[in-house]
Amino acid sequence: MTVKQLSLPELADACEALGVTQVGLWREPVQAYGVEAAAKLVRDAGLTVTTLCRGGFLTAISPAERATAVADNKRAVDEAAALGTDTLVLVSGGLPAGSKDLPGARERIADALAELGPYAEEHGVRLAIEPLHPMYASDRCVVSTLAQALDIAERFPAHQVGVTVDTYHIWWDDQAPAQIARAGAGNRIHTFQLADWTTPLPEGVLNGRGQIGDGAIDMRAWQELVEAAGYTGAIEVELFNDGLWARDGREVLTETTDRFRAHTRP
Amino acid sequence: MTVKQLSLPELADACEALGVTQVGLWREPVQAYGVEAAAKLVRDAGLTVTTLCRGGFLTAISPAERATAVADNKRAVDEAAALGTDTLVLVSGGLPAGSKDLPGARERIADALAELGPYAEEHGVRLAIEPLHPMYASDRCVVSTLAQALDIAERFPAHQVGVTVDTYHIWWDDQAPAQIARAGAGNRIHTFQLADWTTPLPEGVLNGRGQIGDGAIDMRAWQELVEAAGYTGAIEVELFNDGLWARDGREVLTETTDRFRAHTRP
Repeated sequence: MTVKQLSLPELADACEALGVTQVGLWREPVQAYGVEAAAKLVRDAGLTVTTLCRGGFLTAISPAERATAVADNKRAVDEAAALGTDTLVLVSGGLPAGSKDLPGARERIADALAELGPYAEEHGVRLAIEPLHPMYASDRCVVSTLAQALDIAERFPAHQVGVTVDTYHIWWDDQAPAQIARAGAGNRIHTFQLADWTTPLPEGVLNGRGQIGDGAIDMRAWQELVEAAGYTGAIEVELFNDGLWARDGREVLTETTDRFRAHTRP
Repeated sequence: MTVKQLSLPELADACEALGVTQVGLWREPVQAYGVEAAAKLVRDAGLTVTTLCRGGFLTAISPAERATAVADNKRAVDEAAALGTDTLVLVSGGLPAGSKDLPGARERIADALAELGPYAEEHGVRLAIEPLHPMYASDRCVVSTLAQALDIAERFPAHQVGVTVDTYHIWWDDQAPAQIARAGAGNRIHTFQLADWTTPLPEGVLNGRGQIGDGAIDMRAWQELVEAAGYTGAIEVELFNDGLWARDGREVLTETTDRFRAHTRP
């Protein structure tokens, strides 16, 4: 998503040229290219798919909408398995229109995971609940903290449901270090993502994630916490940023790998 | 601030016409009108000043900037006393340029309060640390939760330092109800403010606070929590909203009092 201006073949080429061997993919471009074709493309380029983003949006109240969402998440699990990744990231969904009930919405996510967790396990896929920054609580994700994400995840086996740790969403939270330790102790850190916090936020606050190093977040400090908690998986960089998307994709990918090396430890 | 398009005399008139007997004021219009003149104006109109907003911005590292900030906060205390309110709201300030150290910035706030708390007490004023929504953590307020605000406030006597409970900033936080109880038990709820959460957020995320009833927040539920914690003071409505500011101020004040009555209990 960081370089969504690149087509999948362009992305595979650029990764190969830069020595990048792992990539996180999003469903929309994969579906547009064809799931099997995308799987072959990345395989042939020697790329490993770290995660598929994203399932979720499981907060609807109406039974019909809930059934549609669960079916879509099962397709997302199938796609993850086809791409050879073991992790599907979940963005939980916001409040249904007219609702002011955050705890109720969180309960409906847990209800849906009771069906999706076993389905994912059968396909060799783990679900990774991603807490999103509290500024998305009403319209995108009622799970706002790692503690809330773990409260839901821990109702299920860790190989079914864990969490996504994304610096952009948790950097402000003084409880997050302890929650990272809790997640690690339970083998529930299913992926670790980086983005920096820059201001002013753009209208809609969706596409203003900062390039690594441009903002307020100490990336190395979070990396150390996550690794101290036992995480040994890939570190993803996920930037939603209109400014980066307007530039040449290969140039942005090069810059991003440079920034990644400068702001993380080996 | 909800009707900042009204001058202070217009505001006093409009409040009188609507039967509003209490008003929260901001420093800038009070200073522009003259502190003593503003105090006389509201007194003559039969208005009580609930709080003065705002002091704070106490996170600077440089000694000169810190001294300037402390001196300005002492002036704010003086102004609050002159207006006859016992409460000065504090917005703590963001990260200094180039800093990524949230805990350090929070410590510097506590350091400054050790000087400001006794000064405020001498003038019959209480300081009310306002946790701001985590989306302001880098550039406006490193205190993002009631728990963090109380961790600082509780180092001082409650009649010197307490907290501001504002629905807009805490509504997403599942720990906030317990923290309201904690604040109430310590007599540290120094004011209670309402604003609703509406999306999409505007660029800069400053002036998008929703009119009461337009958004995702259950006002009555928060009122019940705050009152159950022992709070008996005024309830303020504080809306930063470009749309409301573009309308006729008296019309907005009338609408706001109507909404207040519809969405709170007597």
